[in-house]
Amino acid sequence: MGWTEILGLAAGAFTTAAVVPQIWKAWKTKEVEDVSPGMFFVLITGLGLWIVYGVIQKDIPIMATNGLAFLLNSFMIFLIFRYREK
Amino acid sequence: MGWTEILGLAAGAFTTAAVVPQIWKAWKTKEVEDVSPGMFFVLITGLGLWIVYGVIQKDIPIMATNGLAFLLNSFMIFLIFRYREK
Repeated sequence: MGWTEILGLAAGAFTTAAVVPQIWKAWKTKEVEDVSPGMFFVLITGLGLWIVYGVIQKDIPIMATNGLAFLLNSFMIFLIFRYREK
Repeated sequence: MGWTEILGLAAGAFTTAAVVPQIWKAWKTKEVEDVSPGMFFVLITGLGLWIVYGVIQKDIPIMATNGLAFLLNSFMIFLIFRYREK
């Protein structure tokens, strides 16, 4: 594996993991009022399209990183609806 | 341009634009208490790595979409620090 591939994997790891601190914060505080549900709906729409793109291109890293990001961000949407004030 | 390329561009457009509803919400409400700054710092780190990856690969779409996402998410970080409670 070359340096460029390692760089791409590191980039993917960071953009995929980004939602984890937000999940952690929502989980701890149970407060999500200022978080935009729209952000996460647009995001999982895009991630879903990336998964389809990865399947068509038979590109495992694109499928894997976007698949994981899709699951993590879907869980954040679940937390938003669980904790939002009625 | 083939359908696969159009799909990739659509996917990139959605994941790049995702932060816009969050920027809009923060701008309107001036409330960012429940938003995780960590999420946006991890995200722009990853986006910065994607930009370097795009430069090395001479891949204009990767540079352009991640460059735009980097600017939008940096602006969101600015809003978080502007509006957070002291």
